[in-house]
Amino acid sequence: MDKKANQTTREDFERIFHPQRLAIVGVSAEEDGARGFGTGMLNALNAMGFEGDIFPVNPKGGIFAGLTIYKRVEDIPEKIDFAIIAVAAKAVPEVLESCRKKGTAGAEILSAGFSELGTAEGKDLENKIRGIAAKGIRVVGPNCFGIYCPRSGLTLLPGPDLSRQSGPVAFLSQSGGMAIDFAHKGKWMGIAFSKVVSFGNGVDLRETELLRYLADDQETRVIGMYVEGIKDGDAFFQEIKYTSDKKPVIVCKGGLSLAGQRMVISHTASMGGSRIIWQSILRQVNAIQVQNLEELAEAALAFCFLPQGVFKQISVVGGGGALGVTACDAAETFNMEIPTLCASIQTRVGHLLPKPGSSGTNPIDVANPFVEPKVLKKILRVTAEDKQIDLQIIISLLYHYKTMARLLGKPVSQVAPYRELAEGLRDVVKETGKPIVVILANPKRGVDDLDIVEMLALARREFLDRGLPVFDELHEAIRAIGHVNAYYARRNTKNE
Amino acid sequence: MDKKANQTTREDFERIFHPQRLAIVGVSAEEDGARGFGTGMLNALNAMGFEGDIFPVNPKGGIFAGLTIYKRVEDIPEKIDFAIIAVAAKAVPEVLESCRKKGTAGAEILSAGFSELGTAEGKDLENKIRGIAAKGIRVVGPNCFGIYCPRSGLTLLPGPDLSRQSGPVAFLSQSGGMAIDFAHKGKWMGIAFSKVVSFGNGVDLRETELLRYLADDQETRVIGMYVEGIKDGDAFFQEIKYTSDKKPVIVCKGGLSLAGQRMVISHTASMGGSRIIWQSILRQVNAIQVQNLEELAEAALAFCFLPQGVFKQISVVGGGGALGVTACDAAETFNMEIPTLCASIQTRVGHLLPKPGSSGTNPIDVANPFVEPKVLKKILRVTAEDKQIDLQIIISLLYHYKTMARLLGKPVSQVAPYRELAEGLRDVVKETGKPIVVILANPKRGVDDLDIVEMLALARREFLDRGLPVFDELHEAIRAIGHVNAYYARRNTKNE
Repeated sequence: MDKKANQTTREDFERIFHPQRLAIVGVSAEEDGARGFGTGMLNALNAMGFEGDIFPVNPKGGIFAGLTIYKRVEDIPEKIDFAIIAVAAKAVPEVLESCRKKGTAGAEILSAGFSELGTAEGKDLENKIRGIAAKGIRVVGPNCFGIYCPRSGLTLLPGPDLSRQSGPVAFLSQSGGMAIDFAHKGKWMGIAFSKVVSFGNGVDLRETELLRYLADDQETRVIGMYVEGIKDGDAFFQEIKYTSDKKPVIVCKGGLSLAGQRMVISHTASMGGSRIIWQSILRQVNAIQVQNLEELAEAALAFCFLPQGVFKQISVVGGGGALGVTACDAAETFNMEIPTLCASIQTRVGHLLPKPGSSGTNPIDVANPFVEPKVLKKILRVTAEDKQIDLQIIISLLYHYKTMARLLGKPVSQVAPYRELAEGLRDVVKETGKPIVVILANPKRGVDDLDIVEMLALARREFLDRGLPVFDELHEAIRAIGHVNAYYARRNTKNE
Repeated sequence: MDKKANQTTREDFERIFHPQRLAIVGVSAEEDGARGFGTGMLNALNAMGFEGDIFPVNPKGGIFAGLTIYKRVEDIPEKIDFAIIAVAAKAVPEVLESCRKKGTAGAEILSAGFSELGTAEGKDLENKIRGIAAKGIRVVGPNCFGIYCPRSGLTLLPGPDLSRQSGPVAFLSQSGGMAIDFAHKGKWMGIAFSKVVSFGNGVDLRETELLRYLADDQETRVIGMYVEGIKDGDAFFQEIKYTSDKKPVIVCKGGLSLAGQRMVISHTASMGGSRIIWQSILRQVNAIQVQNLEELAEAALAFCFLPQGVFKQISVVGGGGALGVTACDAAETFNMEIPTLCASIQTRVGHLLPKPGSSGTNPIDVANPFVEPKVLKKILRVTAEDKQIDLQIIISLLYHYKTMARLLGKPVSQVAPYRELAEGLRDVVKETGKPIVVILANPKRGVDDLDIVEMLALARREFLDRGLPVFDELHEAIRAIGHVNAYYARRNTKNE
């Protein structure tokens, strides 16, 4: 870490992530009609219910959404904690310098047109920003989507509809697109965020220092990162090692192919690195490497919802023999086992199962998609008694209830017993202390089956609200649990 | 192939897949109230609009849905082409023998309770079925979901809502669950089927002979298989080799793990096999191996929609620099390239792109999700002129139109210009002869965003209707195209 970072206090970071007074430079007055990033961001902040005071700035002045637009940053009558800068690239240095002189703790620069262009002018402008930042204002960007902090209501470009629910996951991303996509994905998957930072070209604040901040951030329990290039490899890996000892760091490294590396250089003007080097170093420091944003989100979900621990032996309750085969294949791939249940448990499960076509070994094939939640609850309670079992997976076949709904002439969301199932599963977890993971599979997603899609979205919320993580596919769930296992197994070995 | 198979004519198969007169044995009269598989299947066939005559059978007689229930198969006054048997396991042999004596070409046995139980009684009953089949009636099952044939209206258990649209894809599956899931997936993904057969325990008709039938079936251009165990390895691999020379065969082999192999034995009473043996043999015969049903469906979609050929060099048009990085990584993984466009094309594309933040090299970053369809059309028309390019991928960011819809106070399905885009892309394919693949990404799937889900379901249909294959994720699309490339490259090399 460089000296300046040490000089940035947690209070400074608090002013950045939770500003009381926020300047937005580059907001057009209503009559002007121009709809730049600054205006968009002001609208988004209003939609999010941002809780601080907002001071829009534009040399032309005017009024926007009932707020006076100040002509210069210097004209703002109050102290400013944080500034959002969305003016043309060549005007950025002057605005940033004004913010710095005013004692602003930090600024995010949404504008593009810097080193990513590869032009001398772009690089020169970026160097100017770097120089101003070094004098004491922390900069996120340029060429970024900014900061999302549900606690304060700060949001990413163009996100007026992100969740205001705070949670344990932080996400750092060079790519703005990845940041906003992940924030949206998290919203329906049940991942709540402490802070998301899209840092773009990363002229000042970037991976290493943000990681250090998050390592000690009480609000953050799990960290995700989308990394293309890194600035200082040694410092980054030291930092990720330090952080990984405290909390899981999940890393998606884009641009590990040769062609990808070429892209990385043009996209964020930073260096890539080879596949093997990244794999071995991330493993060494006990960071979790994932291949894409989906796998990252699934891993984050598992880390959020599962207790800290290793879950090697699992039971799987579902419908259809092939699901059992799939489960066994996935478990072996991700270093888990689906042990045969002990004989007495098998017998007791057998008594609960519908006949014929069901199977009481593990995986347990309930054969019939309409097995009542109270019966499923009993089955999972019994299987949890087997001492071998660390964690249980239930593959819910709720989509089948459309057939029943049609017979009854009712909407499927009224017929499918997802709330009862969610309550039952929550009770089993509470009683047995063994986590349950839910798979909400759905092969029906067409125009005729949007009622099923809706029902499953409602069902997902009920499960999540009761602390039960939900995945779309069994393979993905087992992969995510595998990441949790690998992280805690390595950490425990190390600490022994 | 055994002798009997040679004796089964294409006319017999036609009677099986397209029966004029169908017996369903095990339908309960209305007043009885019992809802077994037979009754469910009759309802499903009615819902599907099955076009032949149906003759329900039950020893108790009675009436169901206006149809007389015959007490015995022998009592049916007409010749029967095909029978669906859904009676208790121990009653199956007698019913099957009656069907055979009546000259029925084939029967599907939905009932479970045979060798999959591992009991002597189950095995004995299955042997009896085998003996009757050997005397001249072809059997699908037992312990299966039956046959789906959109042309005739035959459907899988419990599928009242499968598509009636015929198409080029056949699917063979030991697992009934996989068969019905795949048929449902196909419906919204745009995969239309010639025939789907769930053959369960496969006492008579199974992988090898069905493959031979499909190899020469004019309606079938692409074959998918979910295989757990096979009965006669040598015969199967000879057959798949013969078939793969004619048309692509996509194979998902379940149970390649040790635990999975144990499951395969209990589920379908057949033998599994090691991972390495399967991989090397499938490669030798130029079959396409996939890891799961999702990958199988994506590969089938690519084979259906793309011309026969190898598409090594692709262009990618999308939004966001990170998508470009992802594209390059995926292309390299699946042996494709995203070449830099020639300078004159880059210049022309550059003139069409919004500024700033866009990039006219390949991948082409349009930067702004609201670039009009007519501009995207122009861009793709220009990039197609580059002789390097074999195929184009467009990453549509239609979900962003919700922001615009909110501003306009209209539903997103009215605001997002998907129809115009679909028409534009179809025109470009027609003019340039180079296929276009569409990615309909959507990070927003929650309860608040079901309008986006609906809009994208409608959009998908518009693209598919115009011959444009649609995938959810870029990585999956490139993997699917990679399967097409590998198949035709190997086949071409062989035939040279």
